[in-house]
Amino acid sequence: MLKVGIFGATGRVGRLLIEEILNHDRLNLSSVYVRNELQYSLPSSTMVTKDFKVFLESSDVIIDFSSAHATKALLEVALQSPTPLVIGTTGLDNDTKHLLENAAERMSILYATNMSRGVAMLSKIAALVSGTLKESDIEICEIHHRHKKDAPSGTALSLAESCAKARNLSLENVQVSGRCGMIGERKKDEIAVMSLRGGDVAGRHTIGFYLDGEYLELTHNATSRLTFAKGAIDMAEWIVKQKNGLYSIQDALKL
Amino acid sequence: MLKVGIFGATGRVGRLLIEEILNHDRLNLSSVYVRNELQYSLPSSTMVTKDFKVFLESSDVIIDFSSAHATKALLEVALQSPTPLVIGTTGLDNDTKHLLENAAERMSILYATNMSRGVAMLSKIAALVSGTLKESDIEICEIHHRHKKDAPSGTALSLAESCAKARNLSLENVQVSGRCGMIGERKKDEIAVMSLRGGDVAGRHTIGFYLDGEYLELTHNATSRLTFAKGAIDMAEWIVKQKNGLYSIQDALKL
Amino acid sequence: MLKVGIFGATGRVGRLLIEEILNHDRLNLSSVYVRNELQYSLPSSTMVTKDFKVFLESSDVIIDFSSAHATKALLEVALQSPTPLVIGTTGLDNDTKHLLENAAERMSILYATNMSRGVAMLSKIAALVSGTLKESDIEICEIHHRHKKDAPSGTALSLAESCAKARNLSLENVQVSGRCGMIGERKKDEIAVMSLRGGDVAGRHTIGFYLDGEYLELTHNATSRLTFAKGAIDMAEWIVKQKNGLYSIQDALKL
Amino acid sequence: MLKVGIFGATGRVGRLLIEEILNHDRLNLSSVYVRNELQYSLPSSTMVTKDFKVFLESSDVIIDFSSAHATKALLEVALQSPTPLVIGTTGLDNDTKHLLENAAERMSILYATNMSRGVAMLSKIAALVSGTLKESDIEICEIHHRHKKDAPSGTALSLAESCAKARNLSLENVQVSGRCGMIGERKKDEIAVMSLRGGDVAGRHTIGFYLDGEYLELTHNATSRLTFAKGAIDMAEWIVKQKNGLYSIQDALKL
Repeated sequence: MLKVGIFGATGRVGRLLIEEILNHDRLNLSSVYVRNELQYSLPSSTMVTKDFKVFLESSDVIIDFSSAHATKALLEVALQSPTPLVIGTTGLDNDTKHLLENAAERMSILYATNMSRGVAMLSKIAALVSGTLKESDIEICEIHHRHKKDAPSGTALSLAESCAKARNLSLENVQVSGRCGMIGERKKDEIAVMSLRGGDVAGRHTIGFYLDGEYLELTHNATSRLTFAKGAIDMAEWIVKQKNGLYSIQDALKL
Repeated sequence: MLKVGIFGATGRVGRLLIEEILNHDRLNLSSVYVRNELQYSLPSSTMVTKDFKVFLESSDVIIDFSSAHATKALLEVALQSPTPLVIGTTGLDNDTKHLLENAAERMSILYATNMSRGVAMLSKIAALVSGTLKESDIEICEIHHRHKKDAPSGTALSLAESCAKARNLSLENVQVSGRCGMIGERKKDEIAVMSLRGGDVAGRHTIGFYLDGEYLELTHNATSRLTFAKGAIDMAEWIVKQKNGLYSIQDALKL
Repeated sequence: MLKVGIFGATGRVGRLLIEEILNHDRLNLSSVYVRNELQYSLPSSTMVTKDFKVFLESSDVIIDFSSAHATKALLEVALQSPTPLVIGTTGLDNDTKHLLENAAERMSILYATNMSRGVAMLSKIAALVSGTLKESDIEICEIHHRHKKDAPSGTALSLAESCAKARNLSLENVQVSGRCGMIGERKKDEIAVMSLRGGDVAGRHTIGFYLDGEYLELTHNATSRLTFAKGAIDMAEWIVKQKNGLYSIQDALKL
Repeated sequence: MLKVGIFGATGRVGRLLIEEILNHDRLNLSSVYVRNELQYSLPSSTMVTKDFKVFLESSDVIIDFSSAHATKALLEVALQSPTPLVIGTTGLDNDTKHLLENAAERMSILYATNMSRGVAMLSKIAALVSGTLKESDIEICEIHHRHKKDAPSGTALSLAESCAKARNLSLENVQVSGRCGMIGERKKDEIAVMSLRGGDVAGRHTIGFYLDGEYLELTHNATSRLTFAKGAIDMAEWIVKQKNGLYSIQDALKL
């Protein structure tokens, strides 16, 4: 049985992960990191700890759906106690991304802002269209439930980066996430990444490529938040078999 | 034959209007206002002028698709030379809207930020849903061609106002037209009005109402810019038969 | 506590209903009808029976999500043991619909092919658009999960009936649910009701109204099958307070 | 100047082609085939004929948007008077497709059921997704204007074939173009190709890939029928430079 530790146990995805792992044939919920008290009960076989080092060392692989700040703290300790990691936390700053690359020299790390196969597929075909229909205008629109705190979604930003890279553009120079007033004509290289929020939508992303006379719109829809938990668990089983290094979900799916 | 004057003759809709009127059975293109030189030829029976007063007095009805600034100037002269007006210009400021109300005491004016029957229908049903499903989150998203200079579209703002009014909200207090960064959870009363731009899209508007477990999305799509020209011409034929006053397209369609 | 009986306990919605009722403050799961053995355990306070009469008499209200055939059998016994009913079963034949009307003289019955508020709202606005934009072409498209056995969905057919009625058409004369080959131009009165099937989609319905130059598309999306269970429970609490008669969800929502 | 002949001059796309070519810098409208009388006037430099041989021999390249029957007749004569061909006619039977292959030994022929770059792109990425997410359910839905006589559209069938081929399926064994009644659960290999008709929609195609917990929907929208005329003209300029053989739009775009 593969021993899995959960980091970010009080979040929405964290709780789904715990449920899925407890019901899983090949996995054992070895440890859960909690800073404060846990609101629900766990089997006695699961270690509940607020000590990073103990947490890391009691598991074969860690799945992290926490916050940018918490992920950074985890990575710093992991440098001393290398353990395979699956990181699904979004909104990492450049420092943390740099830390991620350093850490990946001592352990295998899969980093994905979205754990679904469908999103990985979308990312691949979006890059293809971006690079082929080079004069098309790219506009991305995403919607998530009303409780989501950051915008645009980490997934939308990753998709935008894939599209920008296919045109040798730097996203930070061309991203637009709001339009209001007399803004003038659209600039050729702009990539809009717009965010809608409402209800309990699990997550929908649309990438549009607009030409004269025609357009393509590619949409991914998650019908359940369970999709992300299941995807992360598949990745955990895969990452433990890899050599040290930083991997994407595309690597795992051989896309 | 009804004598029609065109204000905003060099714009996209203006040129479509001129073409439609020249081919129309019951209409005569009596006058066209131009500040500078006109790039294309017109029949000799059409007066081309840069004198507001002459322009107004030579027509039974004026159709205006110009700019907020030009519309204001036209209204000021119309107060002295009352003529029925169909105004499709978007982005009018509060002063101009006030002027519109004053002018409507001396002539019949139809003011609509969108001349299509479908949009008028959408506005009506959106207000109905907004008032009935009061706890739903409202998010509006529109897309127009890459040359459009203002955002959000006048139509999108009108739709948002219909939704806000049905909940006794003032749009200016709840409108959101961009989301970027750690913005926190969605506020209950927010109404997003997001703008996409690309290709030669004539105009698409979607109003979403998001609840727990379900959502409604109502979309209007203009398949051709001709739609707006044809709608404006229908309105011109209607407004000349009305008493002084300010009318909406809903009045004309008896919605 | 309101005593609720579940008919159709082995179906997808039936199981969600049982879970919801067991966790509900104001409701008691009094009885469950099962023809064969039940695959899961229930509290000892719940009567499990295959006797229609005993089943009906032990509950204040019955919620039925079964099959057309089973609903007919239930109604026949209910005529002798009147009990308020909430019926969500789709695909009822004309005989059963007639039986429904007869039964409603002796008990209050709410019959809805879809228990969501959003769908009820959609039905109302679709009828409004159908009656107002009378020359528009109506096309309905729905998608459900791959396990659904009937097509089109009961909800799609109800929506089509609302649209047809607003034009004084009889759906059976104008319904089209497949197109293949050299079928010729679209007939003016046709109403298409097309069905897609795939994945685990809980249910999405789109009604399109197509004009020259523009179109409206109204979409309802259920993000979870729980939506229907929760809606049915709300209806059960409402129907027990009504006089004998046949009610729709529109009546309950005062649409 | 390249001499272009138009076959199918009285159809919608045919008329757009003639208008585009007459306004084109590098093209000359050399000949137009008409069986009956033409309803509109052409320059005196254009030959109007009902003789296939004369028609073919007076042009450097022929663009054909006619009917399956007419295309067959044209091909039979072209075997004797080889001329580069761009064929956009849909609904060709197997005999005619066979004839196409034979003819392509004596002249260069581009055959595409849709002349847009966007559709060619869609076909490529759809095949990629079909082959990668092999367990997804594939459902295609298209909509065209109310005057279209065949269903599903030639484009939809081509897209379905691309998807089928990527799974080693034969479309004729798995195509479903209607669903009505108690049809049972969806079969694993089914590919639905459903057709909506209404208004003046130029053409929209959506390919959905439905998995458990998520789905992808890829949509192409033609905002104007001019798209197809412009695409065909680009192809005419390309095909005259190619060796004998049967080409697809993917070949021309190097997709």
